[in-house]
Amino acid sequence: MIVSHKRLLVEWGDCDPAGIVFYPQYLKWFDDCTTALFLAAGMPIQDLFKSYGVIGVPLVDVKARFIVPSSFGDELQADSTVLEFRRSSFVLRHQYFKEHIQSRVLAVEGIETRVWAGPDPQDPKKMKSCPLPPDVIARLSENRP
Amino acid sequence: MIVSHKRLLVEWGDCDPAGIVFYPQYLKWFDDCTTALFLAAGMPIQDLFKSYGVIGVPLVDVKARFIVPSSFGDELQADSTVLEFRRSSFVLRHQYFKEHIQSRVLAVEGIETRVWAGPDPQDPKKMKSCPLPPDVIARLSENRP
Amino acid sequence: MIVSHKRLLVEWGDCDPAGIVFYPQYLKWFDDCTTALFLAAGMPIQDLFKSYGVIGVPLVDVKARFIVPSSFGDELQADSTVLEFRRSSFVLRHQYFKEHIQSRVLAVEGIETRVWAGPDPQDPKKMKSCPLPPDVIARLSENRP
Amino acid sequence: MIVSHKRLLVEWGDCDPAGIVFYPQYLKWFDDCTTALFLAAGMPIQDLFKSYGVIGVPLVDVKARFIVPSSFGDELQADSTVLEFRRSSFVLRHQYFKEHIQSRVLAVEGIETRVWAGPDPQDPKKMKSCPLPPDVIARLSENRP
Repeated sequence: MIVSHKRLLVEWGDCDPAGIVFYPQYLKWFDDCTTALFLAAGMPIQDLFKSYGVIGVPLVDVKARFIVPSSFGDELQADSTVLEFRRSSFVLRHQYFKEHIQSRVLAVEGIETRVWAGPDPQDPKKMKSCPLPPDVIARLSENRP
Repeated sequence: MIVSHKRLLVEWGDCDPAGIVFYPQYLKWFDDCTTALFLAAGMPIQDLFKSYGVIGVPLVDVKARFIVPSSFGDELQADSTVLEFRRSSFVLRHQYFKEHIQSRVLAVEGIETRVWAGPDPQDPKKMKSCPLPPDVIARLSENRP
Repeated sequence: MIVSHKRLLVEWGDCDPAGIVFYPQYLKWFDDCTTALFLAAGMPIQDLFKSYGVIGVPLVDVKARFIVPSSFGDELQADSTVLEFRRSSFVLRHQYFKEHIQSRVLAVEGIETRVWAGPDPQDPKKMKSCPLPPDVIARLSENRP
Repeated sequence: MIVSHKRLLVEWGDCDPAGIVFYPQYLKWFDDCTTALFLAAGMPIQDLFKSYGVIGVPLVDVKARFIVPSSFGDELQADSTVLEFRRSSFVLRHQYFKEHIQSRVLAVEGIETRVWAGPDPQDPKKMKSCPLPPDVIARLSENRP
């Protein structure tokens, strides 16, 4: 599988009164990292959605572990990859690493299940899951150095 | 256990280009609902933290399921409760319901594990988990109509 | 002019490491208050947009003064009203008040210029300002107790 | 004056149901750009605050113009600089430019007045404006290529 990378910089406004990242922000970054993964696979989401008539890749469920807190000015290195393809959904993993002395530690890990969703033929204002196109699967799978 | 209730109104800015709630917002509301639960149990968090020398109740992990999407103008009814107390952490469940014709449907469910965290005696700028005070447990447990 | 009211509760996640509301949140609430104003005038935005073929009421400019800071647990009372109608835009004022002993103090004031925007006939994916419908002006103007 | 630069990438979650950046996000980026300006001047804010006993640089007022909308996938180039130093406050300008064919257009402009704020000697939980240190002024002023 392709693994995409994104550098995350913790800004002042990302942190709460305890001085650490307010956790929904980590989930916001999962979304940004999903965009980065599709881009790394050669499929900018904004073009991809148009060409496949897709409205989005909404979340069905998410699990996240917050292992090491981060504060204003910290940098995180995000690695994102698909773990599994299903018929009309796929499972992603996002890992945020923090440089710590001579090692890097896993600070946050998230597992997302997302649906490939187009307009519902019965009611175009609603979304409906669609089968994942084979070439989207192929591009996210191929291991490019 | 006490179950607290909160009404959530989906605002324009809570939604994404697909017209549905951008999912980190649901997690932001989990946090607001946790505050509401402590308040319903007679312990406003801002006072509670001061009186116990607690910095916050940071998340260790979260699981969420997004069952029914919501859009601008929708209302959600949130129910929040503690599922389990551990030594220095506790597990919360948040459920968001949506009125639908004559029934209410579960739209979002989240399970959070949070830590009762005070300043680390070794380094007061860091946080360290502390045992949950018995009277905090008692107040969150008692079933008040 | 109609003046709408909205109660704002400062949540933990609305605040920054200095323990005060992170100021973009005040602007997010301006938007929520604009929605509340249209609702108070009998025009829920989600229906209004559909019936007039409007995409939104995007901001052209905003000015805000942050007079008194607010913290976790504080309550603000928001008053919103239109100050002026122009051909295809309108100027709104939002004021957030804070109860303080026996008086209420102005904590935040914002002045927004918003455009009444529909799809651009030349390129329906873009937005174009349109003349404000007279009955929208009438409803926002009428003074209902 | 030093002018700092920051690249802003418009993410899916930064946009609203009209498909354009939800405007408080522009203000959030003003804050991030202020951090970047201090860093470009050789003063990382997190260190600077500690060494000067400063709690933050809260906003007193902000003015912003939203000239050209941006959408998911767009890139903005931000230029930030101080326009004026006062006794205990300073005025910043942030400009976001968008590449457009062979020119770059000004998409957003913001003018912020921020206060240099330390703990109030009367009540250390509150903030109080303090005179701007001369060397902070010097570093933000010097023109380094």
